[in-house]
Amino acid sequence: MTTRPRIPVAVLGATGAVGQRFVSRLASHPWFEVAELVASDRSAGRRYDEACAWRLSKLPAFGGLGAREVLPCRAEAVRSKVVFSALDASIAAEIEPALARVGALVFSNASAHRMEPDVPLLVPEVNSSHLSLLDVQRRKRGWSGGIVCNPNCTTTVLAMALAPLEQRFGIVRAFIATMQAVSGAGYPGVASLDALGNVLPFIRGEEEKVEAEIRKLLGHFVGEAIEPAALVASAMCHRVPVIDGHCEAVSLELRGAPRLVEVQAALEAWRGVPQELALPSAPEAPLVLHAMEDRPQPRLDVDRDGGMSVHVGRLRPCALLGTKFFLLGNNVERGAAGASVLNAELCLRRGLLPA
Amino acid sequence: MTTRPRIPVAVLGATGAVGQRFVSRLASHPWFEVAELVASDRSAGRRYDEACAWRLSKLPAFGGLGAREVLPCRAEAVRSKVVFSALDASIAAEIEPALARVGALVFSNASAHRMEPDVPLLVPEVNSSHLSLLDVQRRKRGWSGGIVCNPNCTTTVLAMALAPLEQRFGIVRAFIATMQAVSGAGYPGVASLDALGNVLPFIRGEEEKVEAEIRKLLGHFVGEAIEPAALVASAMCHRVPVIDGHCEAVSLELRGAPRLVEVQAALEAWRGVPQELALPSAPEAPLVLHAMEDRPQPRLDVDRDGGMSVHVGRLRPCALLGTKFFLLGNNVERGAAGASVLNAELCLRRGLLPA
Amino acid sequence: MTTRPRIPVAVLGATGAVGQRFVSRLASHPWFEVAELVASDRSAGRRYDEACAWRLSKLPAFGGLGAREVLPCRAEAVRSKVVFSALDASIAAEIEPALARVGALVFSNASAHRMEPDVPLLVPEVNSSHLSLLDVQRRKRGWSGGIVCNPNCTTTVLAMALAPLEQRFGIVRAFIATMQAVSGAGYPGVASLDALGNVLPFIRGEEEKVEAEIRKLLGHFVGEAIEPAALVASAMCHRVPVIDGHCEAVSLELRGAPRLVEVQAALEAWRGVPQELALPSAPEAPLVLHAMEDRPQPRLDVDRDGGMSVHVGRLRPCALLGTKFFLLGNNVERGAAGASVLNAELCLRRGLLPA
Amino acid sequence: MTTRPRIPVAVLGATGAVGQRFVSRLASHPWFEVAELVASDRSAGRRYDEACAWRLSKLPAFGGLGAREVLPCRAEAVRSKVVFSALDASIAAEIEPALARVGALVFSNASAHRMEPDVPLLVPEVNSSHLSLLDVQRRKRGWSGGIVCNPNCTTTVLAMALAPLEQRFGIVRAFIATMQAVSGAGYPGVASLDALGNVLPFIRGEEEKVEAEIRKLLGHFVGEAIEPAALVASAMCHRVPVIDGHCEAVSLELRGAPRLVEVQAALEAWRGVPQELALPSAPEAPLVLHAMEDRPQPRLDVDRDGGMSVHVGRLRPCALLGTKFFLLGNNVERGAAGASVLNAELCLRRGLLPA
Repeated sequence: MTTRPRIPVAVLGATGAVGQRFVSRLASHPWFEVAELVASDRSAGRRYDEACAWRLSKLPAFGGLGAREVLPCRAEAVRSKVVFSALDASIAAEIEPALARVGALVFSNASAHRMEPDVPLLVPEVNSSHLSLLDVQRRKRGWSGGIVCNPNCTTTVLAMALAPLEQRFGIVRAFIATMQAVSGAGYPGVASLDALGNVLPFIRGEEEKVEAEIRKLLGHFVGEAIEPAALVASAMCHRVPVIDGHCEAVSLELRGAPRLVEVQAALEAWRGVPQELALPSAPEAPLVLHAMEDRPQPRLDVDRDGGMSVHVGRLRPCALLGTKFFLLGNNVERGAAGASVLNAELCLRRGLLPA
Repeated sequence: MTTRPRIPVAVLGATGAVGQRFVSRLASHPWFEVAELVASDRSAGRRYDEACAWRLSKLPAFGGLGAREVLPCRAEAVRSKVVFSALDASIAAEIEPALARVGALVFSNASAHRMEPDVPLLVPEVNSSHLSLLDVQRRKRGWSGGIVCNPNCTTTVLAMALAPLEQRFGIVRAFIATMQAVSGAGYPGVASLDALGNVLPFIRGEEEKVEAEIRKLLGHFVGEAIEPAALVASAMCHRVPVIDGHCEAVSLELRGAPRLVEVQAALEAWRGVPQELALPSAPEAPLVLHAMEDRPQPRLDVDRDGGMSVHVGRLRPCALLGTKFFLLGNNVERGAAGASVLNAELCLRRGLLPA
Repeated sequence: MTTRPRIPVAVLGATGAVGQRFVSRLASHPWFEVAELVASDRSAGRRYDEACAWRLSKLPAFGGLGAREVLPCRAEAVRSKVVFSALDASIAAEIEPALARVGALVFSNASAHRMEPDVPLLVPEVNSSHLSLLDVQRRKRGWSGGIVCNPNCTTTVLAMALAPLEQRFGIVRAFIATMQAVSGAGYPGVASLDALGNVLPFIRGEEEKVEAEIRKLLGHFVGEAIEPAALVASAMCHRVPVIDGHCEAVSLELRGAPRLVEVQAALEAWRGVPQELALPSAPEAPLVLHAMEDRPQPRLDVDRDGGMSVHVGRLRPCALLGTKFFLLGNNVERGAAGASVLNAELCLRRGLLPA
Repeated sequence: MTTRPRIPVAVLGATGAVGQRFVSRLASHPWFEVAELVASDRSAGRRYDEACAWRLSKLPAFGGLGAREVLPCRAEAVRSKVVFSALDASIAAEIEPALARVGALVFSNASAHRMEPDVPLLVPEVNSSHLSLLDVQRRKRGWSGGIVCNPNCTTTVLAMALAPLEQRFGIVRAFIATMQAVSGAGYPGVASLDALGNVLPFIRGEEEKVEAEIRKLLGHFVGEAIEPAALVASAMCHRVPVIDGHCEAVSLELRGAPRLVEVQAALEAWRGVPQELALPSAPEAPLVLHAMEDRPQPRLDVDRDGGMSVHVGRLRPCALLGTKFFLLGNNVERGAAGASVLNAELCLRRGLLPA
């Protein structure tokens, strides 16, 4: 078996919490290789291991790139044509289009461009057909590159469980109450004085993102645009003292009021394009169904399959909407860094990466 | 000002977590005085401070009764005619009726008798009229004493916020997702290996209790029985690493689809019988409404008013049912020991206590 | 009983974690009244409840001063002649002397001036005689006001337990390993991603402060200066996921190798000037000795006596130095805000406050 | 490369926290294969996955043995000649000798036999020569099998850092203050109400075990017995809210007062017999030295090398004894299950396993 040289990529926001996840995940990636570490002016020009407080247990520390010089976050400084972005929304809003204009394909974890009509909001198992938006985007904007977004972490976990049910039955209404990990707020993020032994009942913008993004994610590519799915969603979002792993209590009204065994069968049988293509970051099964009544749990299940599978437990009837269950997903892998990498893997296999 | 002698009371299950709360709360009570500490055979005959690992920060330790001898949990050993019960359901099922038969009025935090048709399930602000069931109970059972239950802690917190809305508008449907404190499981209760940095998606029997008890609580005394309220409730219950304070994300469909300002006005204006009578354990206002977007929080708000007020925050529209908000209540005070004591205070003022 | 008007005071750094403790503690103080809230330029000019994220459970929120305007942190903006400072060291280094020069007596929790030879580093039970340094300070510096510091929180807790043993026996050597609460780092302070389920083995500057300050604290006022105590101390400082309460494992070599019962007697019998004068913030006994083998614990004991007593437990022999025990003190009250207030109370009773 | 059949082994106490670690670790072991799962009478006769609440995140759940029947904890029920024991001390005291008598070599994590003069207390890097005690044990007791113990988890971590310094310089005195994880107390172990946001200043028997076991561990095999090392140790043990990983603040007096660079060199250079023999569970280097000032940390470092390396950080001078540092070790792997497995690996390579 011959191995092709790995494709050089840039990581924007490489010193932050999600940026470190990108660097760590790509350190052993078969197709991509981190060529450029990009961060704010405060970090630019310094060694990566001096600019960055590495907060991951996974080795090698700094993804083995501790001695590499950090580049400034300006379009002209970045040469890689495949770019992973872990930037804050405000900075992403400027640099991501600038890079796309000059030919880079940007896989972005930022919220800045997610809801723009010609930007694919992609979860490969859920809506790989949305990638066709990239053509529209390039044509309309005159870009040689492009922007592909992954959704908010909470939405991604939700979409993974809703997709097979939307496909098989159709979803009318969805209730979601979340218990989200502190890593979702980045580093330093939530103060320990707020998090320890506490529940915070508010995460700015989160409920709005979930309610809007889920409809785009589950929507259909019609003509040159995404027609949002019909479901109405109501989200209530909370922060709990958990390191990694977003939990979601979900209740659904499904068309045709299927029996629980049918719902369970649909969830268990579900496979997506990443599984068909055996993409490197794809879990064998996108959903793991738990039969034990007190599972899944963040502490025990969040890192399975490299954090790329989503866990469903306590599937049971709901007196109001028909079906309810408990969800767990890894917010920093399936919900952030792993999500963008999986998107890039799909693009590579589809021949969409810049030469 | 003359002071009447305090009424002697017994605390059953005095060495447990809720039992300690009873002892602590009653140590400075103006009307009641702990005369008998009752616990399992393992503890009986020992000094209270040797039989009991005091786990409260409130002083005096052991309610000042450390040297008192613990009595065995048998009806013939208890002389007090006012009894507070913090027993496990299985033990309560036997001894509470035995005591009621011989003239004691038992204020029980146990689940054993809550749903029996002639047992008042009482939250004084919510359904003080249900106390009339006590007559029915005594007549039917031929008891000189009786049993008055307080609901499950989660239901109590919920009922406090739902009562004014049921009274003012009527509730059609209710969604409840809870994030519950570990103290709700007693001591030793939840293992630290399960609780630390984790969410547990299952609390045995809790969802069923909430869905059933809330309908009895909000029901009406008609003829000789409680006609349950019409609302349909769906509860999803979770344990989070918080010491004290149950949080609940609630969404409601209210009759007539009132505007949020009307809902807020109904919650703010609400007062109950305990406030009218200025009962010793009653908070000035049963509900505290929070305007700050990230409040209430267990760590900051759970002990206000001696843990007897319930906190409402983030009142906002719900895309599905109309109205949603976040609730916080003290599960060990308003949801357990304080609940029973408030019930006893109401009975005393209503002239229902045994002579 | 007639009441004198309360003395107007200023709180510098009023929006921070320790500043809020000052405001809360002074809200119900019999002698002092917060007249001025002072904070950084970012907060100046705003209402206190808008400039400040109140993080205390104690009511009233904002000490009842939510509507008060925040003043800028400049000497000419402050009129009060009694000033409590919760500033960062770098800012304190400039403004505290400026205020002292124009007549204010500054009670400072900042580290900036603690080790200056003419600044009293005061714990009233421990070294009230050091207040004589204030004369020296005024004369040398030509100030009409002055600066009185309280030590670092860890040192204060330690000094409370060491003082009676230094006085009664003399201390040769002291080992201290600390487990410190996150509130010691202020707000936002320690990131939850660092604190949750973790131990941090490093607190910048802490070990040096403890080792140096304890010698000044236990020293003697000789001539015009403090002669440091002779003991040699070695401190190892760690952060643990506790909200409030610094724990310290201490081992001591005492002169004359006293028996444990003598050590215990010395600790139990100890009273200081605040107890003699019955100062408002003074606990009845400065040290609380615990006989139960698993006490004290931060969660159960840290708020006793308004957080002003220090707890000693597990007094036992040490194979190396002779005597060892476990200490707990409230780092934000006895170790910060309460410390400065007690210092001011002592100065008032000694007639040292500006007219 | 040919592979030999794996040696069948029994795990005693297989349903408990350490038992699960044994089963998980052995599931992929190259030399050993779990043939028998043994537990209390309550579990005996049931399927392993029904008798056992699996609390490990590592897959496969139940080590792939979920369907296996659990055997009763009686000597006649166990056929394997290699036995790993995760029993409580009181049960171990009876069954371990019974098995050894009939030919089994028992690798025990229990404290029951550790301090018996003819039982090797073994950490292969530290004192592999102590294995010679096994001959003495067999001869004296007339056993065909034997018992080999690993030390208490806290002692093991300590011994790993002390061994190279004892060998190179000699240790006169040692101070140890620990911050221990809740997993050290087994499951259910520490109640969450005790652990959350708290420090517990007492772990029964722990200080005595550390002070005694460390001297045996670092001692020398002379004649037919172990002559304990000369060092005097003083331990202060505390429980903190950490899942896995015991932290220890250590200060040492070393003979000849070596400079820090010499101490560091001795720690870095140290390798033991497991490294020479490349035993399957041996880490490449037994000690990992950390240069970053805030490392090691349990959350980031405890699982490195499968939990088998011990981490040293903050090496610095101590004003009292000369040298101090911070230690971290995995209490359930290097301190329990991994320890026993490594001991068995050494015995196999030394030809000491029963045929």
